Amino acid sequence: MVLDVELELGDTANGDGCVFCAIVRGDAPAEIVLDDPAGIAFLDRRPLLPGHVLLVPRQHVATFPDLPVADVGPLFILARRLTRAVAEATGGEGAFMAINNVVSQSVPHLHVHVVPRRHDDRLFSRNLAWTRRPYRDDDHMRQVAAAIRTALDDERLSG
Amino acid sequence: MVLDVELELGDTANGDGCVFCAIVRGDAPAEIVLDDPAGIAFLDRRPLLPGHVLLVPRQHVATFPDLPVADVGPLFILARRLTRAVAEATGGEGAFMAINNVVSQSVPHLHVHVVPRRHDDRLFSRNLAWTRRPYRDDDHMRQVAAAIRTALDDERLSG
Repeated sequence: MVLDVELELGDTANGDGCVFCAIVRGDAPAEIVLDDPAGIAFLDRRPLLPGHVLLVPRQHVATFPDLPVADVGPLFILARRLTRAVAEATGGEGAFMAINNVVSQSVPHLHVHVVPRRHDDRLFSRNLAWTRRPYRDDDHMRQVAAAIRTALDDERLSG
Repeated sequence: MVLDVELELGDTANGDGCVFCAIVRGDAPAEIVLDDPAGIAFLDRRPLLPGHVLLVPRQHVATFPDLPVADVGPLFILARRLTRAVAEATGGEGAFMAINNVVSQSVPHLHVHVVPRRHDDRLFSRNLAWTRRPYRDDDHMRQVAAAIRTALDDERLSG
Protein backbone atom coordinates (compact mmCIF):
# COMPACT_ATOMS: atom_id res chain seq x y z
CA MET A 1 0.00 0.00 0.00
CA VAL A 2 1.63 3.18 -1.14
CA LEU A 3 0.62 6.76 -1.60
CA ASP A 4 0.41 6.43 -5.29
CA VAL A 5 -1.74 5.29 -8.10
CA GLU A 6 -1.86 1.56 -8.39
CA LEU A 7 -2.62 0.85 -11.98
CA GLU A 8 -1.99 -2.30 -13.90
CA LEU A 9 1.02 -1.06 -15.69
CA GLY A 10 2.85 -4.19 -16.62
CA ASP A 11 5.94 -3.13 -18.48
CA THR A 12 4.40 0.01 -19.90
CA ALA A 13 5.48 2.35 -17.14
CA ASN A 14 8.27 4.00 -19.02
CA GLY A 15 8.84 6.39 -21.90
CA ASP A 16 6.58 5.61 -24.83
CA GLY A 17 4.25 3.35 -22.87
CA CYS A 18 3.62 5.78 -20.02
CA VAL A 19 -0.02 5.78 -18.93
CA PHE A 20 0.10 9.44 -17.90
CA CYS A 21 1.50 10.41 -21.30
CA ALA A 22 -1.44 8.49 -22.79
CA ILE A 23 -3.86 10.55 -20.67
CA VAL A 24 -2.12 13.76 -21.77
CA ARG A 25 -2.49 12.68 -25.43
CA GLY A 26 -6.14 11.73 -24.92
CA ASP A 27 -5.42 8.07 -25.66
CA ALA A 28 -6.35 6.82 -22.19
CA PRO A 29 -9.57 7.65 -20.32
CA ALA A 30 -9.46 9.93 -17.28
CA GLU A 31 -11.77 12.31 -15.44
CA ILE A 32 -9.82 15.43 -16.30
CA VAL A 33 -10.55 18.38 -14.01
CA LEU A 34 -7.94 20.83 -15.29
CA ASP A 35 -6.37 21.07 -18.73
CA ASP A 36 -3.70 23.74 -19.02
CA PRO A 37 -0.56 24.27 -21.10
CA ALA A 38 1.46 23.66 -17.90
CA GLY A 39 -0.22 20.42 -16.95
CA ILE A 40 -3.26 18.20 -16.72
CA ALA A 41 -5.06 17.15 -13.55
CA PHE A 42 -7.39 14.18 -13.28
CA LEU A 43 -9.03 12.06 -10.63
CA ASP A 44 -7.01 9.23 -9.17
CA ARG A 45 -9.19 6.20 -9.81
CA ARG A 46 -8.40 4.71 -6.42
CA PRO A 47 -8.40 7.78 -4.23
CA LEU A 48 -7.29 8.07 -0.65
CA LEU A 49 -10.41 10.22 -0.35
CA PRO A 50 -12.89 11.24 -3.06
CA GLY A 51 -11.53 14.26 -4.87
CA HIS A 52 -7.93 13.01 -4.82
CA VAL A 53 -6.40 14.37 -8.02
CA LEU A 54 -3.12 13.84 -9.80
CA LEU A 55 -1.49 16.79 -11.55
CA VAL A 56 1.08 15.92 -14.20
CA PRO A 57 3.26 18.00 -16.54
CA ARG A 58 2.56 17.36 -20.22
CA GLN A 59 6.10 16.35 -20.96
CA HIS A 60 7.38 13.03 -19.66
CA VAL A 61 9.72 13.68 -16.76
CA ALA A 62 10.25 11.03 -14.12
CA THR A 63 10.74 12.98 -10.92
CA PHE A 64 10.50 16.51 -9.56
CA PRO A 65 14.25 17.19 -9.91
CA ASP A 66 13.90 16.19 -13.58
CA LEU A 67 11.37 18.97 -14.23
CA PRO A 68 13.06 21.92 -15.97
CA VAL A 69 13.36 24.92 -13.65
CA ALA A 70 11.30 27.06 -16.05
CA ASP A 71 8.36 24.66 -15.71
CA VAL A 72 8.31 24.58 -11.90
CA GLY A 73 6.36 27.80 -11.33
CA PRO A 74 3.60 27.14 -13.89
CA LEU A 75 3.03 23.59 -12.59
CA PHE A 76 2.82 24.59 -8.93
CA ILE A 77 0.55 27.53 -9.66
CA LEU A 78 -1.85 24.85 -10.88
CA ALA A 79 -1.18 22.77 -7.75
CA ARG A 80 -2.03 25.81 -5.62
CA ARG A 81 -5.36 26.26 -7.43
CA LEU A 82 -6.14 22.57 -7.02
CA THR A 83 -5.30 22.67 -3.30
CA ARG A 84 -8.09 25.15 -2.78
CA ALA A 85 -10.50 23.61 -5.28
CA VAL A 86 -10.48 19.99 -4.13
CA ALA A 87 -11.25 21.09 -0.56
CA GLU A 88 -14.01 23.43 -1.67
CA ALA A 89 -15.53 20.86 -3.99
CA THR A 90 -15.70 18.10 -1.40
CA GLY A 91 -16.49 20.06 1.76
CA GLY A 92 -12.96 19.45 2.95
CA GLU A 93 -11.39 21.48 5.73
CA GLY A 94 -7.96 21.42 4.14
CA ALA A 95 -5.88 19.58 1.60
CA PHE A 96 -2.70 17.54 1.40
CA MET A 97 -0.27 17.95 -1.47
CA ALA A 98 2.53 15.46 -2.05
CA ILE A 99 5.03 14.12 -4.52
CA ASN A 100 6.72 10.74 -4.27
CA ASN A 101 10.06 10.69 -6.04
CA VAL A 102 11.32 7.23 -6.95
CA VAL A 103 10.33 5.51 -3.69
CA SER A 104 6.56 4.83 -3.49
CA GLN A 105 6.24 6.22 -7.02
CA SER A 106 4.28 3.68 -9.05
CA VAL A 107 4.20 5.66 -12.29
CA PRO A 108 7.55 7.15 -13.28
CA HIS A 109 5.97 10.32 -14.69
CA LEU A 110 6.09 13.18 -12.17
CA HIS A 111 2.68 13.62 -10.53
CA VAL A 112 1.51 15.86 -7.72
CA HIS A 113 -1.10 14.33 -5.43
CA VAL A 114 -3.70 16.76 -4.13
CA VAL A 115 -6.03 15.19 -1.58
CA PRO A 116 -8.89 16.89 0.28
CA ARG A 117 -8.65 16.49 4.06
CA ARG A 118 -11.05 16.51 6.97
CA HIS A 119 -10.04 16.65 10.61
CA ASP A 120 -11.69 13.27 11.19
CA ASP A 121 -10.30 11.41 8.17
CA ARG A 122 -7.51 9.71 10.18
CA LEU A 123 -5.11 9.96 7.26
CA PHE A 124 -2.18 10.52 9.61
CA SER A 125 -3.54 8.83 12.73
CA ARG A 126 -1.74 5.95 14.35
CA ASN A 127 -4.40 3.61 12.98
CA LEU A 128 -4.21 5.38 9.75
CA ALA A 129 -6.39 4.93 6.79
CA TRP A 130 -4.08 5.16 3.78
CA THR A 131 -6.55 2.88 2.10
CA ARG A 132 -7.18 3.35 -1.57
CA ARG A 133 -10.82 2.87 -2.37
CA PRO A 134 -12.35 3.09 -5.82
CA TYR A 135 -15.30 5.42 -6.37
CA ARG A 136 -18.71 3.84 -5.77
CA ASP A 137 -19.38 3.95 -9.50
CA ASP A 138 -18.69 6.05 -12.56
CA ASP A 139 -21.46 8.48 -11.66
CA HIS A 140 -19.85 9.17 -8.32
CA MET A 141 -16.54 9.83 -10.02
CA ARG A 142 -18.12 12.13 -12.58
CA GLN A 143 -19.95 14.10 -9.89
CA VAL A 144 -16.77 14.67 -7.90
CA ALA A 145 -14.87 15.70 -11.03
CA ALA A 146 -17.64 18.14 -11.97
CA ALA A 147 -17.58 19.69 -8.50
CA ILE A 148 -13.84 20.26 -8.73
CA ARG A 149 -14.15 21.83 -12.18
CA THR A 150 -16.81 24.17 -10.80
CA ALA A 151 -14.62 25.11 -7.85
CA LEU A 152 -11.74 25.87 -10.23
CA ASP A 153 -14.02 27.98 -12.43
CA ASP A 154 -15.42 29.88 -9.43
CA GLU A 155 -11.93 30.74 -8.28
CA ARG A 156 -10.92 32.00 -11.70
CA LEU A 157 -14.06 34.13 -11.99
CA SER A 158 -13.58 35.59 -8.53
CA GLY A 159 -10.11 36.77 -9.48
CA MET B 1 0.91 11.54 15.33
CA VAL B 2 0.83 13.72 12.31
CA LEU B 3 3.10 14.50 9.40
CA ASP B 4 4.14 17.75 10.84
CA VAL B 5 6.43 19.38 13.31
CA GLU B 6 5.30 18.86 16.85
CA LEU B 7 6.73 21.76 18.73
CA GLU B 8 5.59 23.13 22.04
CA LEU B 9 3.76 26.05 20.60
CA GLY B 10 1.30 26.93 23.30
CA ASP B 11 -0.68 29.86 22.01
CA THR B 12 2.16 31.30 19.98
CA ALA B 13 1.31 29.56 16.73
CA ASN B 14 -0.14 32.56 14.99
CA GLY B 15 0.93 35.88 13.51
CA ASP B 16 3.46 37.67 15.69
CA GLY B 17 4.26 34.63 17.83
CA CYS B 18 4.91 32.27 14.88
CA VAL B 19 7.91 30.03 15.56
CA PHE B 20 8.79 29.82 11.86
CA CYS B 21 8.78 33.63 11.58
CA ALA B 22 11.15 33.61 14.56
CA ILE B 23 13.48 31.25 12.70
CA VAL B 24 13.31 33.47 9.61
CA ARG B 25 14.24 36.50 11.75
CA GLY B 26 17.05 34.58 13.43
CA ASP B 27 15.34 34.79 16.83
CA ALA B 28 14.85 31.05 17.23
CA PRO B 29 17.53 28.39 16.75
CA ALA B 30 17.42 26.08 13.74
CA GLU B 31 19.83 24.05 11.62
CA ILE B 32 19.35 26.12 8.49
CA VAL B 33 20.44 24.33 5.31
CA LEU B 34 19.26 26.88 2.73
CA ASP B 35 18.84 30.62 3.12
CA ASP B 36 17.43 32.33 0.04
CA PRO B 37 15.32 35.40 -0.69
CA ALA B 38 12.46 33.06 -1.58
CA GLY B 39 12.59 30.99 1.57
CA ILE B 40 14.52 29.29 4.33
CA ALA B 41 14.94 25.55 4.85
CA PHE B 42 15.96 23.95 8.12
CA LEU B 43 16.00 20.54 9.72
CA ASP B 44 12.81 19.33 11.36
CA ARG B 45 13.92 18.60 14.93
CA ARG B 46 11.80 15.47 15.10
CA PRO B 47 12.27 14.05 11.61
CA LEU B 48 10.43 11.19 10.01
CA LEU B 49 13.89 10.26 8.78
CA PRO B 50 17.21 12.08 9.29
CA GLY B 51 17.49 14.81 6.69
CA HIS B 52 13.79 15.75 6.86
CA VAL B 53 13.74 19.48 6.14
CA LEU B 54 11.06 22.14 6.28
CA LEU B 55 11.08 24.88 3.64
CA VAL B 56 9.16 28.04 4.54
CA PRO B 57 8.54 31.32 2.75
CA ARG B 58 9.92 34.35 4.59
CA GLN B 59 6.57 36.05 4.80
CA HIS B 60 3.94 34.63 7.13
CA VAL B 61 1.28 32.91 5.06
CA ALA B 62 -0.80 30.16 6.59
CA THR B 63 -1.42 27.75 3.72
CA PHE B 64 -0.35 27.10 0.15
CA PRO B 65 -3.39 28.86 -1.37
CA ASP B 66 -2.45 31.92 0.74
CA LEU B 67 0.95 32.17 -0.97
CA PRO B 68 0.90 34.91 -3.62
CA VAL B 69 1.06 33.47 -7.13
CA ALA B 70 4.28 35.39 -7.85
CA ASP B 71 6.01 33.60 -4.97
CA VAL B 72 5.03 30.07 -6.00
CA GLY B 73 7.74 29.50 -8.60
CA PRO B 74 10.67 30.78 -6.51
CA LEU B 75 9.63 28.71 -3.48
CA PHE B 76 9.19 25.47 -5.42
CA ILE B 77 12.42 25.92 -7.31
CA LEU B 78 14.01 25.69 -3.86
CA ALA B 79 11.85 22.65 -3.05
CA ARG B 80 13.10 21.01 -6.23
CA ARG B 81 16.73 21.59 -5.24
CA LEU B 82 16.07 20.23 -1.77
CA THR B 83 14.35 17.13 -3.16
CA ARG B 84 17.58 16.16 -4.86
CA ALA B 85 19.88 17.35 -2.07
CA VAL B 86 18.29 15.59 0.92
CA ALA B 87 18.44 12.27 -0.93
CA GLU B 88 22.03 12.78 -2.02
CA ALA B 89 23.12 13.92 1.42
CA THR B 90 21.64 10.93 3.23
CA GLY B 91 22.20 8.14 0.73
CA GLY B 92 18.48 8.15 -0.01
CA GLU B 93 17.04 6.51 -3.10
CA GLY B 94 14.34 9.13 -3.48
CA ALA B 95 12.50 11.83 -1.60
CA PHE B 96 9.00 12.70 -0.50
CA MET B 97 7.70 16.25 -0.69
CA ALA B 98 4.49 17.27 1.04
CA ILE B 99 2.42 20.15 2.33
CA ASN B 100 -0.32 19.85 4.92
CA ASN B 101 -2.87 22.60 4.59
CA VAL B 102 -4.99 23.21 7.74
CA VAL B 103 -5.54 19.54 8.60
CA SER B 104 -2.42 17.92 10.17
CA GLN B 105 -0.72 21.32 9.99
CA SER B 106 0.70 22.03 13.46
CA VAL B 107 2.31 25.36 12.61
CA PRO B 108 0.07 27.71 10.60
CA HIS B 109 2.96 29.06 8.55
CA LEU B 110 3.18 27.34 5.17
CA HIS B 111 5.96 24.75 5.16
CA VAL B 112 7.04 22.21 2.60
CA HIS B 113 8.27 18.91 4.02
CA VAL B 114 11.10 17.30 2.09
CA VAL B 115 11.98 13.86 3.40
CA PRO B 116 14.65 11.49 2.06
CA ARG B 117 13.29 8.03 1.27
CA ARG B 118 14.69 4.53 1.03
CA HIS B 119 12.87 1.56 -0.43
CA ASP B 120 13.06 -0.19 2.94
CA ASP B 121 11.94 2.72 5.16
CA ARG B 122 8.33 1.49 5.41
CA LEU B 123 7.00 5.02 5.38
CA PHE B 124 3.94 3.97 3.41
CA SER B 125 3.76 0.34 4.42
CA ARG B 126 0.71 -1.07 6.15
CA ASN B 127 2.67 -1.19 9.40
CA LEU B 128 3.95 2.17 8.65
CA ALA B 129 6.57 4.05 10.48
CA TRP B 130 5.38 7.66 10.56
CA THR B 131 7.26 7.91 13.80
CA ARG B 132 8.96 11.16 14.62
CA ARG B 133 12.29 10.56 16.25
CA PRO B 134 14.66 13.25 17.46
CA TYR B 135 18.25 13.20 16.25
CA ARG B 136 20.62 11.18 18.44
CA ASP B 137 22.24 14.39 19.61
CA ASP B 138 23.15 17.85 18.39
CA ASP B 139 26.24 16.54 16.63
CA HIS B 140 24.14 14.15 14.59
CA MET B 141 21.83 16.97 13.60
CA ARG B 142 24.72 19.24 12.64
CA GLN B 143 26.33 16.50 10.55
CA VAL B 144 23.14 15.88 8.59
CA ALA B 145 22.60 19.60 8.04
CA ALA B 146 26.20 19.99 6.82
CA ALA B 147 25.75 17.11 4.36
CA ILE B 148 22.63 18.73 2.91
CA ARG B 149 24.37 22.09 2.56
CA THR B 150 27.21 20.36 0.72
CA ALA B 151 24.78 18.57 -1.61
CA LEU B 152 23.08 21.90 -2.37
CA ASP B 153 26.43 23.55 -3.05
CA ASP B 154 27.56 20.67 -5.26
CA GLU B 155 24.41 20.97 -7.35
CA ARG B 156 24.87 24.70 -7.77
CA LEU B 157 28.50 24.31 -8.80
CA SER B 158 27.67 21.58 -11.29
CA GLY B 159 25.15 23.88 -12.95
